[in-house]
Formats: sequence, C-alpha cells, structure tokens
Amino acid sequence: MTIAYLGPSGTFTQAALLQIDPHGTDHLPVSSVPAALAALREGRAKSAVVPIENSVEGGVSATLDAVAAGPEVRILAEMLVPIRFNLVAREPKPLGEVRAVSTHSHAWAQVRQWTEENIPQAEYIPASSTAAGALALSGSGTVGHDAAICAPTISAAHPELAVLAENIGDNPQAVTRFVHLGSADAPLPERTGADRTTLVIPLWADRAGALMEILEQFSTRGVNLSRIESRPTGNYLGDYFFSVDIDGHIQDERVAEALVGLRRICPTTRFLGSYARADRKAAVVAGHHTDGAFTQAREWVSALRTQ
Amino acid sequence: MTIAYLGPSGTFTQAALLQIDPHGTDHLPVSSVPAALAALREGRAKSAVVPIENSVEGGVSATLDAVAAGPEVRILAEMLVPIRFNLVAREPKPLGEVRAVSTHSHAWAQVRQWTEENIPQAEYIPASSTAAGALALSGSGTVGHDAAICAPTISAAHPELAVLAENIGDNPQAVTRFVHLGSADAPLPERTGADRTTLVIPLWADRAGALMEILEQFSTRGVNLSRIESRPTGNYLGDYFFSVDIDGHIQDERVAEALVGLRRICPTTRFLGSYARADRKAAVVAGHHTDGAFTQAREWVSALRTQ
Amino acid sequence: MTIAYLGPSGTFTQAALLQIDPHGTDHLPVSSVPAALAALREGRAKSAVVPIENSVEGGVSATLDAVAAGPEVRILAEMLVPIRFNLVAREPKPLGEVRAVSTHSHAWAQVRQWTEENIPQAEYIPASSTAAGALALSGSGTVGHDAAICAPTISAAHPELAVLAENIGDNPQAVTRFVHLGSADAPLPERTGADRTTLVIPLWADRAGALMEILEQFSTRGVNLSRIESRPTGNYLGDYFFSVDIDGHIQDERVAEALVGLRRICPTTRFLGSYARADRKAAVVAGHHTDGAFTQAREWVSALRTQ
Amino acid sequence: MTIAYLGPSGTFTQAALLQIDPHGTDHLPVSSVPAALAALREGRAKSAVVPIENSVEGGVSATLDAVAAGPEVRILAEMLVPIRFNLVAREPKPLGEVRAVSTHSHAWAQVRQWTEENIPQAEYIPASSTAAGALALSGSGTVGHDAAICAPTISAAHPELAVLAENIGDNPQAVTRFVHLGSADAPLPERTGADRTTLVIPLWADRAGALMEILEQFSTRGVNLSRIESRPTGNYLGDYFFSVDIDGHIQDERVAEALVGLRRICPTTRFLGSYARADRKAAVVAGHHTDGAFTQAREWVSALRTQ
Repeated sequence: MTIAYLGPSGTFTQAALLQIDPHGTDHLPVSSVPAALAALREGRAKSAVVPIENSVEGGVSATLDAVAAGPEVRILAEMLVPIRFNLVAREPKPLGEVRAVSTHSHAWAQVRQWTEENIPQAEYIPASSTAAGALALSGSGTVGHDAAICAPTISAAHPELAVLAENIGDNPQAVTRFVHLGSADAPLPERTGADRTTLVIPLWADRAGALMEILEQFSTRGVNLSRIESRPTGNYLGDYFFSVDIDGHIQDERVAEALVGLRRICPTTRFLGSYARADRKAAVVAGHHTDGAFTQAREWVSALRTQ
Repeated sequence: MTIAYLGPSGTFTQAALLQIDPHGTDHLPVSSVPAALAALREGRAKSAVVPIENSVEGGVSATLDAVAAGPEVRILAEMLVPIRFNLVAREPKPLGEVRAVSTHSHAWAQVRQWTEENIPQAEYIPASSTAAGALALSGSGTVGHDAAICAPTISAAHPELAVLAENIGDNPQAVTRFVHLGSADAPLPERTGADRTTLVIPLWADRAGALMEILEQFSTRGVNLSRIESRPTGNYLGDYFFSVDIDGHIQDERVAEALVGLRRICPTTRFLGSYARADRKAAVVAGHHTDGAFTQAREWVSALRTQ
Repeated sequence: MTIAYLGPSGTFTQAALLQIDPHGTDHLPVSSVPAALAALREGRAKSAVVPIENSVEGGVSATLDAVAAGPEVRILAEMLVPIRFNLVAREPKPLGEVRAVSTHSHAWAQVRQWTEENIPQAEYIPASSTAAGALALSGSGTVGHDAAICAPTISAAHPELAVLAENIGDNPQAVTRFVHLGSADAPLPERTGADRTTLVIPLWADRAGALMEILEQFSTRGVNLSRIESRPTGNYLGDYFFSVDIDGHIQDERVAEALVGLRRICPTTRFLGSYARADRKAAVVAGHHTDGAFTQAREWVSALRTQ
Repeated sequence: MTIAYLGPSGTFTQAALLQIDPHGTDHLPVSSVPAALAALREGRAKSAVVPIENSVEGGVSATLDAVAAGPEVRILAEMLVPIRFNLVAREPKPLGEVRAVSTHSHAWAQVRQWTEENIPQAEYIPASSTAAGALALSGSGTVGHDAAICAPTISAAHPELAVLAENIGDNPQAVTRFVHLGSADAPLPERTGADRTTLVIPLWADRAGALMEILEQFSTRGVNLSRIESRPTGNYLGDYFFSVDIDGHIQDERVAEALVGLRRICPTTRFLGSYARADRKAAVVAGHHTDGAFTQAREWVSALRTQ
C-alpha cells in the first residue's frame, strides 16, 4: 500500500501525508509532481500526495496539469497544512553574514519581504525542494550556499542545523492545500455534507460566451464555485482549460445535474473526484436546490410522461 | 362523447371542431369559454374546443385565464382556422345605406380599417359572438342593427342573408389557433417530432431577474419559446402569470429537464399538455441538446456515482 | 386645451381625467381608444386620457396597440381609479326579476361571480361602454335590456335610476391604471424619484434568447420591470412586440444606459415616456447602480481615454 | 531612456526588447520581474520588458502579480518570441555522458519529454534564468553542472560553448508573449483596429454569480475575452483576482462602455492598458456593437432627455 509523495522527507507534502497516514511506513518520496503521478499510474504506488493550491502562490501548475491529462485519477481527500519557514545554517551567525541562501522558488516567493528587509545582501540559489537546500547544509560536502529556508519540521529533525530565524513567511496565515490521489477505479468517497468536487473543463472557444455557458450550468442549480483557474493546454496562446472546485458531492442532486449539463456541452469534461472538505464547511443550499426539490420535480415530470 | 365548443353553429370555433371530428354529431354549442370549460370539468362534455390565440388580436384572455385556474385540463391538439369576414344584411343594399352593424368585438377590431373606409356612417352594435348578429338578422324579429359581420360559413348556411361584401378583414392572412381540451387524466398525445408544449408559470416576484431565471431554464437546454404572454392574476396591479408555448414534447429529454428545473423554482408551474403542432414544423435541435446527448451525459454521471 | 377621453361622461376614464383636471371644462368624450388617439394625433385634442391596465383584466389591448404604432405619443402622467360596480334598473325590483343586463365586456368579466350567484337567469347584452347600457335605461326609449352594470358615478349622476345592488365587483381591490397622453414633442415630465418609464420593444426573433438579451439590458443596470406584456404585431401567429414598464426615469443614469443598450440591439424600440408613479413608490437602487456610481465610472474611463 | 528587462543578456526577454528597440544602448538587465517593476516605479528605468504569458506554461505569475498591486503601470506594447532551446556544454560529448543540467524551472518544464528520452540520467539543477546556467559554463570556475539549456541567442553569442543538441523544446510552436511596460502617465497607445486591453479585476465574492456578472459586462457589449486567469490575492485560500485580456481598445465604444459597467460593480478594477496586438488580428464586431451603433443609440436617448 505504497503512498508516493513529493519528497524528500521533511517537506510540507510529507506533513500532509502524515495527516492521513500517521503510522504508515510505506511512504515513497519522489522528486517531482509528475514523478508522483507516474508512480501512481504505473502501479508502483497505490496512491499519491501532492500540493494543489497555495493561499499565496495560487494553484500548483505541475499538479493541475498532471491530473488534467494522461490516464484518469481521483482525488480521495484533501489536507491543509499551515506554511511556516525557518532560516537555517551550519552554525549560528548574524543575519548580516549570510551570503547565499537556497530554497525552492515557491518558498522564496513567500519570504521575499522578510529577506529584503533582513538579509538583502544574500544571493538566491534555487533548489528543487524546500528540504533540499537545508539537507545539503546538514551534510559535510561543499555547497554554494551558506543558509537555507525550510519547513520547521526539517530543522526539528536536524538539530545539527542552527536556526537563524523562525517563522519568516511574509503572510503568517499562509496555508497549502494538498490532495490524496488514487486510481480512477478507487471507490467514490462518501458524501459527508461538507464536500468538494473537482473538475477539469476544456474551454471550447475563446469567448466570454463559452465561459458563461459553463458557469450557467452551475448557477442555475445553485452550485457554488470555490476555485476556478485557467491553464494553457500548451497548444497555442489563448487555448485554455479550467480547473474548477465546486461546493458539494456528485451524490448531491444539484451537483449531479450540473455535471450532466456540463458533460452535454463539454463532452471532454473530466471528473477528478468528490471528497470531504478539510475545513468541514457545509454548503448553504437554497430550498429549491435541495435533493428533495429535485426529487419532487422529477416525480412530477415523470408522472406526466407516463400518463 | 360530447364535445363542447364556443357556439353557436357557424362560428370559427365550430370550423376548428369539424377539423378534428368532421362526422361527429354530439357537438354541444355553449355561449362562452368559461361555459365550455365548465362543461368539460363537470363531465357534461368529454372534451372542448376553444380559441387560444389570434394572429391579429393576440391571446384569447378568456381561454388563457380559464385553463390557468380551476381543476387541471390538458390540451390534446391544436387547429388553425383562417379568419375571413363577410358583411351581411336582410336584403341587398348599397354600403352607404348601412346604419348599424353588429358583430363580436374581436371581429370588429379586425375589420376596422375596411369599415372606416366603406361604411364610416355605420354605428357599431356589440354582439356576443360573430354568429349572433347575423342569426338575429336571419330571423324575422325586430333588431337594432341592419347589417352584421360574420364568418363565410354563416352566410353560406343562411342563403336568406344577402352578402353585401366578402373577405373584408384588414389582414388577409389572419388566422386563429384553437385547442382541443380534455380532462387532466387524458392520455398524453404521442410525440410526433413536431410538437408543442403549453405551460402556465407564475411570476413569483415583480423583477426582471425572476423572468430571466425562468427563461434560463429553457435556454440552457436549447428549448425555444414560440409564445409568451403575461396575464394578471387579478390580485393586484403588476401581479402576473405567464402563458408559454415551447417547441417540443415532454417526452423530449430537453423539455423534460427544463420542466424539472422550472418546477423546482416555480412549484406551482402548471403543465397544460404536449401535442402535435398544426403546422407540422419540427424543432431544430443542436447536437448537445438531443436525447442522445442527454442519455450519454446521464450515463457518465451515473457510472461515476455508483463506483 | 381640449382633453379627449374614453366617454361618455360617467365612465371610469372620466374619473381618471378629473384627477388631473378637476375644474377643466374642455373635455371631449370619444367612443373608443383609437378615436381618442386620433383626436390627439390630428390635433383636435391637446392630450388624451385612456385606460392602460386593469388589475383583473390585464393590459388594455386597444391602448397598448394604439400607442405602439402610428405617430409617436408620450405618456405624461398616470392615474389610478378603484373599480366599483353597481347594478341599476329603471325601477326597484327583486334581483330574481332581472331578465337582461347590459354593460361593457370588460366590466362583465369582473362581475361574473356575483352575477352567476345573484342573477343567473339574466341574459348578457354587450355594450360599447360601462356608461352606455345605464344611460340607455335612463332615457325613455325601448331597449333590449332591463338592467345595467355601471360605475357608481353614473348612478350618482342619474338619480332616476334605481340601484339594485352596490359594489358587486368580484375583486373589491380592483383598480385600473389610466394614462394621460400628449404629443411626441411634449416636454419630458420632471424626475420625481418615484417614476416609471414605458417602452415598446419589438421581439426580433421567436426565441428565448432574444427575450433574455432584452431583459439583460435591464438587469445588468439594476433596472426593475414592473410590467411586461406581449402583443401580436398582427403579421402572423407568434410575431410579438413587448409593452414594458420599468422603474425609474430616463434622467436616471441606469435607465438612460439601459435604453442605449436596448436601442442598439432593437433599433425600433419606442420610448413612450417617463412620468411620476401614481403610488409615489420610489425605486430601490443598489449603490453600484446609482447616478453617482455611473458618473464616477464614466469619469474614470474618460480620464483614461484622454491621457 | 533606460529600458529595464529580465536579464541577463541572451534571455528571451532581451530578444523581445530588441524587437521594439533594436538599436538602443540603454538596456538594463535585472534579475527578476519584481526588480524590473521596481526599476520602472522608482524612476531608474523609463520602461520595462517582462514576459506575461507562455503558450505552454501559461501566465507568468510573477508578472501578473507585480502589475496587479503597487503603483499603477501601463502596457504600451506586446511582443511575441518563439521559444527554442539548445543543450550546451563546455566541450562536445555524447548525450549519454551529461551528468547534471541546469536551466530555469520554466524552461525545464518545456523540455521534459526530450530530456527524459535523451538524457534520462541527468540530474536537474535549478538556475535563476535560462542564461545563467549556460553563462556559468562559459566561465572557467567550478560549477555543479556539466550542461545547460538555453536560448539559441546565448549559444550564438558564446561560441566557446559546444551545442550538444538544438531545438529540444517539446512543443515546436511554443511562443512567449512579452509586454513593454511604461508608467501610469504614459500616453495611451493609438487605436489600430487590432488591439488588446488588459485588466485586473478583483472577484468580490467566491461564487459563480460574481464571475458571471463580470463576464456579462463584456458579453452584452460584444466584447470577447482572449485570456482569463485567476490569481490568489494571498489573503486566504479561494480569494482571487482575475487577469483578463479583451479584444479591442478603450477608444472602442463597446470596450469603454464595458469598462464603465465593470468599474461600477468592481470599483477597484485596474486598467493596465490598450495596445496593438502583435498578431495584428482585428476583432470581429457585430453591427449592433460598432461605434456607430453606440453613437446612434446615445443620440436617441440624449434627444429624449433634453426635450
């Protein structure tokens, strides 16, 4: 029951994974989101954990693209991880002496204000993950940087690293949403009443009208969008698909009917899953959009048709 | 198998009735639309024929109101009758000598231009039907008018009447649509591919938005409106319901689904029937609104839900 | 300064006229709505008063059609008149002895319930106005009816008539809205803050989409519809125009901009006037639809364009 | 007249800059998009050139975010640059001997397929630009990588570098769009008939309805969207703004009016400029959305208001 995740050990992704499988031992760190998807699709992992959205940086393009194309996968669960950053080095030293600092570019973007104010002299050295730069320092080899920005879990696990500054993120409320992905034949998660459904919708024409027709499928059934992001298909400038989160579960009648409408007008719409919201916030549904309202209306039409 | 109709014999309504029951003998002329509906609802007639829409005068309010309230009825068929008018009198005479002319107010409205040009001196005497004024002349009693405007069928059936002028309608293409009404438990007419569905929709709030929500239920499923008329509920100024004709049959998936949506937002929506169009004009339906598109989309959602 | 009105003296229309010109003496009764419009358009009257909408019977087709075609006219004011009916005869007698009752067909429609319960034996004799049937009884000539249904003002003005029953309308709240019409070059009534604007809008195609495009012009500017009625153009079945009342004055920016949008998509849209509401009810306008919001937004765009 | 650009010399951004200023000498390479914006806003540069959208990778988040917040700037022009990649090393060698390859993460994403097929053994070393990794190899110092992926301009300018493979991008049609930014008081570029307008629109509520209201402002005026991207505001998950390109120039009446509507409902809408499209593709405009249609409709309303 291997679970692949965006490693190495100590990343925020691992923290997300430990939320759903705290005592598991078969966790497979991989070096990129596509690698995690490949492990899942090729059967080397039963499931995978990857980041999908950050409150500061937005959607994680690598994930949005990887789940939109290729063999279908399903989101089984979502997890929220607060994002905190520490500045670490091989030994304690004044901030003014930091010459070169290494971290992942997404992390760097989230501490820019702090670094400009506190270590403006430091050069930035890109790393392939937030853990990589710090782990390089924990070894004894020669590296091009003398400080790194990483998750608190890394510095906690590596007491040999000196923490020069804690909690240096520009936005103290920053949070990243992760998803637990399974194969396309995984059982559908049960409806909890506080669910989310994720879709991939191709925009079949570059016009305002096409997007409005899509949105109408949701609005006429009282289905709320909690996230909508455009991503290029890669074909040409202006050719997009949308990655969309809606409130509710496919077992909710209003969601099921919106999907029927959507599928009619966009036959290549992709369903990525219905799953419990991490924040347990239930959708507010008007009376005429409840399951009961759908059932009664259908029974009325059904009776008329069989007369 | 009595069929009530807006009489007396010789009206355009009788002509419509003869289209669907040319050799029937059990035809019951009644004096008003409400009387025809009463005969049907009280079981004295098995069905009824009444006018619903005239190309010049618009919807027939008496019919629209009578079918919108009270026990439910169903439209089983529609019939079109071209509207032609003759001017008749007891004996031949010059048009300049006509003093007073009698006919139904709707007929009078449709010959105003001709009468102003040809018999401007004549006083108008309202009658309760287009036949009544002429039939009064065919008898020997004293009447207040010396000419009448009626259907050609009346003058043909009463050779004792002199025809002073033929085909005097202002609009030679004028046509009236009649409906054959049955009880609410009558079998649903079969789908022919060129059908019409008639609805009564209450407007639950006096705002543009409410009407748009109603129309959206049709437009998102590619259902065309061929007639929409507002009628007061009688409660207060500005309180309306809509009488609506849409293209298609309740057995068409796009129509059935639009009705489900409509019933959810307007639980008192009334279904008046699906029936063959008299003009046999088939609806033009885009690929993603066909029955096949609905079926495929539903199967997709259904498979996802039962996984 | 002649004012034409739908007469004769004693009609509800005269009551409406007396609201705006209580002491005027140059009041010209005419026999029909088209006659009132003709008097105005041909200069025989400076203005005209006609009914436009009844809370029980709906829009007055003769008026809606007369102002929609022909030379343009303007609505200068609206007046509300409560509708009450009395049953009168030449001398007092029991209701059971009434044989034939005369009134205008619209009035007859509004007392049907009372008449069916109280004088079911009486034959209905159409009259050209609510006053005509009663006035015929007040004379000494032979008439075909022995009772009439008229406005209380008629029975008050003719004490020789016996009132057999008072206030016999089926709906005690019934009210009719009248309009005071002037020529197309009449000065625009001032904005009061509680105004109404009346429009004639051709429906250029028989589809739900066309009507939605029209409504959208109002809804995107927060303009509410208080009345919408379809009327046939007379050309063929299903060819309609809409008669529409919206809340607000053309001097309100949101109304002016909606009219610009409407005129672009329906170049034959006709403006019938902006005038004070008889009920003095002010429109509720959201912050982003106020004149101030329009002005600020325009100034922003204007500054950007002239940079 | 300094122009800042995302350097160093040899980047695709420089190629874009040379399109608009081929003989200029005052070009200031900076290390990041925020640095380019800072140079412009602080007056150290008169204008700046940065990438905004890539046909494979989508919107350039750093640019979208940098122009959305802070002092206003204006887009003066756009430039398209085809994206080609070369693999270079210090000396010629078989692909199988490449151990570690360095480039910017966006470039890496665009050659993944080629690298997996041709140099699967190579480790990826992130660099801060596509030029940086190659330039490090052109020097004599010790570096952690033995190959780099860069623009053809870099390898052309540095004959000391050996080109191991040419044109290795996964999508041979890949193109990046760059923008030439000026200060907020720069003169508005003239209308050419083939223009684009870029906007930043906050989404004021997390619901489908809000986005539909925004889109409606465009669709009711026939304004087409050629790009729409959501970006997080950074405040919390699900709080977005939209970066939008529309067809047309603010001097087009339909665009100006859409902006007025948008500004009313989103008072913090930001105008980023109207400028000529690099592909010179003119917008297709229906008759009722042309400047002439707006002018005629406004004159009609204006005449009615001043009567």
